Amino acid sequence: MKNSFELKQIGTIRNTETSAWIEVNESYAAGLKGLEQFSHILVFYWFHENDKPENRNTLEVHPCHNAANPLTGVFATHSPARPNLIAITRCRMTSMENNIIHIDGIDALDNSPLIDIKSYFPWEDEDVRYPNWEDRRKT
Amino acid sequence: MKNSFELKQIGTIRNTETSAWIEVNESYAAGLKGLEQFSHILVFYWFHENDKPENRNTLEVHPCHNAANPLTGVFATHSPARPNLIAITRCRMTSMENNIIHIDGIDALDNSPLIDIKSYFPWEDEDVRYPNWEDRRKT
Repeated sequence: MKNSFELKQIGTIRNTETSAWIEVNESYAAGLKGLEQFSHILVFYWFHENDKPENRNTLEVHPCHNAANPLTGVFATHSPARPNLIAITRCRMTSMENNIIHIDGIDALDNSPLIDIKSYFPWEDEDVRYPNWEDRRKT
Repeated sequence: MKNSFELKQIGTIRNTETSAWIEVNESYAAGLKGLEQFSHILVFYWFHENDKPENRNTLEVHPCHNAANPLTGVFATHSPARPNLIAITRCRMTSMENNIIHIDGIDALDNSPLIDIKSYFPWEDEDVRYPNWEDRRKT
């Protein structure tokens, strides 16, 4: 069995001081059909600035870059340093035109490579437990 | 800028008739430190059986393999046929021992390649809108 896989950039995240949007490459635009039925999307992008061995070999971090948070395994965090540099965030769409999706904001660097979009269905309501870290963003 | 990225398999999803668990490769086990503080995790795996050009070039599907659902762009679905074969699901952990995470179930094929784990924090409660598809699993 293969043990590595090829991820293709399918678009670009744009994030300026005044607005945020997603540019899906035109060759993938057909994949957006019906997205307007949803209020929210899951946006997957690549932490491209960390695509170096030292970041991909990082296994423990202080969450939210705050030394007050205990040293924690990267899989227990959303750290941008991790073996596979997958980022996920939920966004609210404000409008769509062809291959451009306008969103109300995103916690991503401008020009981050887009790797996937999925429609957002809320998970079933369950009793959820998590630690109370300093500086965690509410996104 | 690069427009493709290397994803590494970091473990394996096991899903048998009687139980489900995640085997993280031992070389990544340090990345799990602190995961026991969470009740739920986001599990990212690769739809490895679809890693063929015809599936990665699919841009429209009938959601949930049900022709009663309208033809929809793959980015508006969680279809296993899509340009990047990233799967995401939320799981409840039942126990952990070293590099093994026992979960209460997962909608994944046995032996699916694990590509990431992130701790699950619920997204802020917002008004969410989505279509009412036939056969959608409540996961």
